[in-house]
Amino acid sequence: MQEVDKSLPEFLRQKREFSSQYTRTCRLDIGQRQNILHVLGTTLKANLTRSAPPKTKYFSVKCTPNVEYIISPLPKATSYLSPVPLMDNSVLLISMKEASDHSQNYTNDKLSVWYYGTDKNVLDRAVLHLTAVEISLDVDADRDGVVEKSSPNKDTWKWGPNGHGAILLVNCDSESVHRKRPDSEREHVILASDVRDMSEMVLRTKGPPELPEGYKLVLHICQSDAEKCRVFICSGEHYPLVLSSAALSTEIPYLGNDEIKFYVEGTKFPDKDFDGLIKINLSLLEPICDGIPETPIFTDTVVFRVAPWIMTPNTLKPLEVFVCSTKDNYKFLEGMKSLVVRSGCKLNTLYEYFNRGDRWMQDELEFGYIDSPHHSFPVVLDSPRDGQLNDFPYHVLLGPDFGYVTRVPKRKDVSSLDSFGNLEVSPPVTVNGKHYPLGRIIIGVAFPTAANGRNMTKVVQDFLWAQAVQKPIALYSDWLEVGHVDEFMSFVPAKDRKGFRLLLASPDAAYKLFKNLQNDGHGYAKLFEDIPEEGTITVNEILTDRQLQNENNYVQSCIDWNRDVLKKELELDDEDIIDLPILFKLVVHDGQYRALAYYPDMVNMIVLGKNLGIPKPFGPKVNGECALEQRWSH
Amino acid sequence: MQEVDKSLPEFLRQKREFSSQYTRTCRLDIGQRQNILHVLGTTLKANLTRSAPPKTKYFSVKCTPNVEYIISPLPKATSYLSPVPLMDNSVLLISMKEASDHSQNYTNDKLSVWYYGTDKNVLDRAVLHLTAVEISLDVDADRDGVVEKSSPNKDTWKWGPNGHGAILLVNCDSESVHRKRPDSEREHVILASDVRDMSEMVLRTKGPPELPEGYKLVLHICQSDAEKCRVFICSGEHYPLVLSSAALSTEIPYLGNDEIKFYVEGTKFPDKDFDGLIKINLSLLEPICDGIPETPIFTDTVVFRVAPWIMTPNTLKPLEVFVCSTKDNYKFLEGMKSLVVRSGCKLNTLYEYFNRGDRWMQDELEFGYIDSPHHSFPVVLDSPRDGQLNDFPYHVLLGPDFGYVTRVPKRKDVSSLDSFGNLEVSPPVTVNGKHYPLGRIIIGVAFPTAANGRNMTKVVQDFLWAQAVQKPIALYSDWLEVGHVDEFMSFVPAKDRKGFRLLLASPDAAYKLFKNLQNDGHGYAKLFEDIPEEGTITVNEILTDRQLQNENNYVQSCIDWNRDVLKKELELDDEDIIDLPILFKLVVHDGQYRALAYYPDMVNMIVLGKNLGIPKPFGPKVNGECALEQRWSH
Repeated sequence: MQEVDKSLPEFLRQKREFSSQYTRTCRLDIGQRQNILHVLGTTLKANLTRSAPPKTKYFSVKCTPNVEYIISPLPKATSYLSPVPLMDNSVLLISMKEASDHSQNYTNDKLSVWYYGTDKNVLDRAVLHLTAVEISLDVDADRDGVVEKSSPNKDTWKWGPNGHGAILLVNCDSESVHRKRPDSEREHVILASDVRDMSEMVLRTKGPPELPEGYKLVLHICQSDAEKCRVFICSGEHYPLVLSSAALSTEIPYLGNDEIKFYVEGTKFPDKDFDGLIKINLSLLEPICDGIPETPIFTDTVVFRVAPWIMTPNTLKPLEVFVCSTKDNYKFLEGMKSLVVRSGCKLNTLYEYFNRGDRWMQDELEFGYIDSPHHSFPVVLDSPRDGQLNDFPYHVLLGPDFGYVTRVPKRKDVSSLDSFGNLEVSPPVTVNGKHYPLGRIIIGVAFPTAANGRNMTKVVQDFLWAQAVQKPIALYSDWLEVGHVDEFMSFVPAKDRKGFRLLLASPDAAYKLFKNLQNDGHGYAKLFEDIPEEGTITVNEILTDRQLQNENNYVQSCIDWNRDVLKKELELDDEDIIDLPILFKLVVHDGQYRALAYYPDMVNMIVLGKNLGIPKPFGPKVNGECALEQRWSH
Repeated sequence: MQEVDKSLPEFLRQKREFSSQYTRTCRLDIGQRQNILHVLGTTLKANLTRSAPPKTKYFSVKCTPNVEYIISPLPKATSYLSPVPLMDNSVLLISMKEASDHSQNYTNDKLSVWYYGTDKNVLDRAVLHLTAVEISLDVDADRDGVVEKSSPNKDTWKWGPNGHGAILLVNCDSESVHRKRPDSEREHVILASDVRDMSEMVLRTKGPPELPEGYKLVLHICQSDAEKCRVFICSGEHYPLVLSSAALSTEIPYLGNDEIKFYVEGTKFPDKDFDGLIKINLSLLEPICDGIPETPIFTDTVVFRVAPWIMTPNTLKPLEVFVCSTKDNYKFLEGMKSLVVRSGCKLNTLYEYFNRGDRWMQDELEFGYIDSPHHSFPVVLDSPRDGQLNDFPYHVLLGPDFGYVTRVPKRKDVSSLDSFGNLEVSPPVTVNGKHYPLGRIIIGVAFPTAANGRNMTKVVQDFLWAQAVQKPIALYSDWLEVGHVDEFMSFVPAKDRKGFRLLLASPDAAYKLFKNLQNDGHGYAKLFEDIPEEGTITVNEILTDRQLQNENNYVQSCIDWNRDVLKKELELDDEDIIDLPILFKLVVHDGQYRALAYYPDMVNMIVLGKNLGIPKPFGPKVNGECALEQRWSH
């Protein structure tokens, strides 16, 4: 660092600050008028020796009041205004204070460098005619819903409440209810309301009414980012497309003291090959001469992150419940309706002409949402399971402010584990000090040591992992015939501890309950008494079935393996877990033993706030009441 | 946290340590002999209420000396040995001190739980017969070339000299010199020497001579990791394959007090979809009963990172220089041979029957290497440029301890920018406090605002970025007709400052030199005087060519843009850069103006330690000497 003479003008003492700014190398031409467009906030750096005429020994610099400069290395104070000795590394740093007067097209701002010979005789001079403009491409980097000017954080991105960086929504809803399709797949903005789904980006400029001849403002984006977003310009009531994968750069008009609004939409969700970050650049191009391409002299960059798809845990209060009406489920619907009404939700029944007998709403889709400071809406994730309900998410749910996303497996490798009964999310948790305010996604897969296990298909797993904010946990569910995690686990809200309990199916708890019944003299109590067509069985018969005990020991081992994973990955204590008495039995297909619930699987319930809709287990009746239901009421 | 009574036995006071270990939920069966295989270093956790017979009010625990246990919640000290009241959350944590005696197959280690009724009358008991084994899958996690036992860092990975984590080489050399192909593409280990390229992994076990019946050790890996490595087992002089993408899990014999060696090879380099990390797991599987799959009760995991491909900067002293002999380059070869001999390197000349007239060795390949604590060898990166030299890297260079890697573009979108004259690496630098001990890779691409620019093909760019350790810098080289960064920049070693200088082509420096010549009365000096067939031109003629000046102003702008990028990305000062006086001219193809050197491009040199092989510029002769060469000699 060089010593600074305190007697120097203020701006000469600012050298360090000066040179840490965006610096551009600039040439000095001798003998011809040189017009320079300068962007405020940047520094021009001219090598004085490069342009000096032969035999130059000294130089001096003069400028008009709006121009600032620093000579490096700093000359001695005494020689500051007299000619300065030219050295091999003499450099001039030039900056300007204000945008040029916007009422006139030409500038009066000048800087000249005079070159002198051995006797301080003038050899030649270089004159820069300077025009200053202020240019800023702006986004809502502080996430308050307002596009602030020149945020220092606009070109970086950081997660969390103390983070920063603008957010983009995938425009995956459909403004139109006729001929529906996600807006991001339409060529044009069909309704002005569509821009509400987009993020505002503003180009702010200040300076003369026009840029000097040949200068251009160009908005540009790289190919891979352009495949994940589109940019529209606001032009009265129209929104022409300016950037897309078919147009990587577009010239933007310079309007002097004004601002231009853009609207940016995401077109792809984060995925395995896309971390969600997108850069959009604005460059100022300088002409050289006819027939030669312009070069950029200034680039301003903003960063967006495409908002992830977020799942909601079943412990949150639901708004609406979707069920299917089929030929045989009238009683189920009655019960459900009464529960839903009692819970203050809306019931949405899908009739048979639409569901065509497919009742597994839970398996066909998963509800989630996307969120940003400017807007938020629900988004349905359509499962690769393509049953008779297949059209429902796209043809019924997709609409204005209701988005749609799906992932299509590359090969036909869809299994039962791709139904979304096998996709859940935990309530908020803190694990090893890391907070998951939106919980963690839970899926079921084959056991790691299994060579031929069934798995959730790769494209859906990749999608879920790429959303990042609800970091998934892979459980082992392939031991189940149907293979869905919701067959052995669920969450219910609670007022104490972590705000919820994890419910786990437990054959051990079932055996314990049955042994207590036997011990209390109820060994002859029968299961399935109210549905005799299924065949009844007594508590004693169950307790003496050695094979059934072995099968349930196995099931308990599988569930305990998952229990240990869940305790670790959600940081749960035993007190956060409730064991539900559920028995399983094994069935064999192609030599593979897999488990089914022995009686209706109570853990596979619907949670509507405080009210739980639990499958009726048809357990052993003691004094006219089902012992399993009684157990539950505690 | 619970208060601990100091009068309790030592191990009861260790509860916190105890439970922070790998914990497995374990069932307690009443009334039947229960054999448990316990892995040392882990904890068994048994829920006492789950297994308690009906009406249990108290319990007590007894065990043999090699077994340790803790009751949670901790009972009062006074009641420690007398029956303890059973609570809803009563849990038993069980651990063992030493591996079971290896001289006998059956264990004498036992733990029993006695259950009592209201009057402390015995209701029943559960007895665990425990066998303890020690199991550790080990790698060289501390990078000293030795596989240490049970490294605490074996399942995580951290870069740098203070980091940890095992390293894997891509086995991309060919042990055989006949029918060459990279060893990782062969089905078998053909020569024992091949295991030198692989990383050792050791399974260490201690315990009884055999595992209890039905228990198994299984080595396993996930599908995506298996596509990037293979594991061989050492079996005398043979090395059978145990894990690959076709075999995700393999049973490994348990040998009691012994160790089993494995050799692991990488099969893929880090790339866009592969961060280089690979996990290999060893699980101990427990049988339930016949016809039911085993469940894992212990898993040990090790992590490897596949070593990146590393380029060497031209400022390092070279070992060998490869050149092509063609019909017309006898003089060039003579000069090169003398330079190479003077520099103490080996000259390797490729004759015309092989190069078929293609002299651009530098464009066809790039030399690099891969490194690990156990081994290191050079690896050639073959360019997608497929000229007549195409076969050279594979057919000549590939061999024992000389690896080969290439990337094949998906579409035929290879341009001149894919030649490796457009791929360089800087000497070591420190940028914003971040040290790059291996320098940073430099490539040339189209300018970001250009819609139809030429680029280095995506698969090669992805490969280079994925190697991570030499984080690439993308310069703008598409303004050049040939489009290679080595046409305007090079590095030379230096004793001072950062240990090198960046050389940049500079039209401004050329004009300055020519003006000085004119000023000194040498305006009539001619360029190309020794090659009159190219047409000569005087200094005065060059200085009065307005069009040439405009073209070179443009070229200087392009180079200055790159100069600013390099200064920022390599943290260089102006004093680290030397401007070489080189003029360019523009040529037009399909309406695109691009630049060619006006006279032989001195910056495109070969650096052999202190000796530089610089293209003869045929500049203006002053007193019989080339002014450009004279300038250089300063």
